[in-house]
Amino acid sequence: MAMKVVVLVGGVGGAKLALGLAKVLPPEDLTVIVNTGDDTWMYGLRICPDLDTIMYTLSDLVNKENGWGIAGDTFQTISAMKRYGEDAWFGLGDQDMATHILRTRWLQAGSTLTEVTNHLTKKLGIHQQILPMTNASVATIVDTQEHGEIDFQTYFVRYRWQPTVKSLRLDGLDKAEVSPEVEAALNQADALIVGPSNPWLSIDPILSVPGMRDLIGSLKIPKVAISPIVGGEAIKGPAAKLMVELGHESSAEAVARYYGDLIDGFVYDASDDEMNAPQQYVTKFETIMKTDEIKVSLARNVLEWIQSW
Amino acid sequence: MAMKVVVLVGGVGGAKLALGLAKVLPPEDLTVIVNTGDDTWMYGLRICPDLDTIMYTLSDLVNKENGWGIAGDTFQTISAMKRYGEDAWFGLGDQDMATHILRTRWLQAGSTLTEVTNHLTKKLGIHQQILPMTNASVATIVDTQEHGEIDFQTYFVRYRWQPTVKSLRLDGLDKAEVSPEVEAALNQADALIVGPSNPWLSIDPILSVPGMRDLIGSLKIPKVAISPIVGGEAIKGPAAKLMVELGHESSAEAVARYYGDLIDGFVYDASDDEMNAPQQYVTKFETIMKTDEIKVSLARNVLEWIQSW
Repeated sequence: MAMKVVVLVGGVGGAKLALGLAKVLPPEDLTVIVNTGDDTWMYGLRICPDLDTIMYTLSDLVNKENGWGIAGDTFQTISAMKRYGEDAWFGLGDQDMATHILRTRWLQAGSTLTEVTNHLTKKLGIHQQILPMTNASVATIVDTQEHGEIDFQTYFVRYRWQPTVKSLRLDGLDKAEVSPEVEAALNQADALIVGPSNPWLSIDPILSVPGMRDLIGSLKIPKVAISPIVGGEAIKGPAAKLMVELGHESSAEAVARYYGDLIDGFVYDASDDEMNAPQQYVTKFETIMKTDEIKVSLARNVLEWIQSW
Repeated sequence: MAMKVVVLVGGVGGAKLALGLAKVLPPEDLTVIVNTGDDTWMYGLRICPDLDTIMYTLSDLVNKENGWGIAGDTFQTISAMKRYGEDAWFGLGDQDMATHILRTRWLQAGSTLTEVTNHLTKKLGIHQQILPMTNASVATIVDTQEHGEIDFQTYFVRYRWQPTVKSLRLDGLDKAEVSPEVEAALNQADALIVGPSNPWLSIDPILSVPGMRDLIGSLKIPKVAISPIVGGEAIKGPAAKLMVELGHESSAEAVARYYGDLIDGFVYDASDDEMNAPQQYVTKFETIMKTDEIKVSLARNVLEWIQSW
């Protein structure tokens, strides 16, 4: 299949779709634009969880049970931090640590996150382009009933997304802009796919980069989103819980309505009841990507469907 | 035994003596002042090899085969760096990495190296005071025949101290000063011991901190050095090779002459021939500290000998 595709993703679900697309498209035809609103400083190191999940997935290093981290990784450094009395609640594997140490060093030496990501991914043999949504530091801040405003990883990892979310905001947007690489990839794309990632926590940060929503809106190409909600539940993570807390119904249809006219096409799971999406094109595929075969068939189905419009 | 002792040390040999002293003296009576001329930035992290060797030895974490590093440590992070194409020639264990990550973070947050070292050592249950020679960054620069000027770790680890040394110099001395903690420890000491460390690479950097040599010279207490040279050879490391390259004879006597009137007493190994040291007090003890028993007996012998003057 030969079409230039840009996919917007967060972490695990998006990574699975990106892997499916990578197995269907020539490597030079796929660009993955990744949420960096989850990024944080931890132990003095710059951590980019979604970028790493995409990178480890496409390089086949990923821990397939978790969907994130490196298979077989150990946790000696974190254990040793605890010996020093540190409350090292954010687990980082020892192999994974190399990514954070090198990234931090290169960022501090003046490289952009786009340059660092390009170097790391190329060294792992990834030929697809993986781009952070922006080079600036943009942080998702979660206002919770229980703890007030907390940073994303405190919400997600420390409190295992159990606090009740009152609202979300993004810190640092004033200094963020669409990078030249993201702009070029979008302008050259034949199709845009919004992965089955959390619309509020993963996709919204990408769309909120100043200029991004307008740029995507200006593209005269098919744009399609895949629902992360199946049977009213999230396949993984807090999407369904969060939807309810933010005043939405927990359903694929509510996701479709949330994206509205940003996209032309909406894909939801084959097991769901028929629904009324506001988009012009709506279809059902098998979207729970438990196996590599399903990842590939979902990628192929979506691309063939777009080409049939 | 109750006397306040300050010992000046570099890495492995000094650590063994410090452990012997720690087993003989009440913890509050021992201060270890440590060379930091070997310190370096590696992978964006601040590495203090001699401080860590002392810390791991006194906390019984040390890898006893090497005399440095942590027993049973793994090397997953360094392996993963190599996967990224990094020439990661400076091996750091995964548990050891926690020390460097925490130290770097706290230094960058504004703590002094003395404060960081105090925190790390206390958390490992060390009740003796371990002090860096200064809070400033002072780097031993090695001028070699083969590679010109190189930093200490490039000389020591990368080239395994094989290059021929033409001269040594210390970078950063202009901004270095004796810390209040080092000054207080020296002023309160009842005795000063110069450990069996490399006089040029480990002890000279300590003595070169502006004010240090004068401060030590002004103390009216017994000062004794232990030879790192036995039978004309270094017990470990480049001391003997370096002495010859710097124009000295490779002998305990040459070490005694090098220290000159900085010290009053000189200890050399029981197996050596009688020698003419310029110091007032000269004696022989078993100095090759292969076992904890020998470490303790050397420490006890030196202290009892000092008390007998």
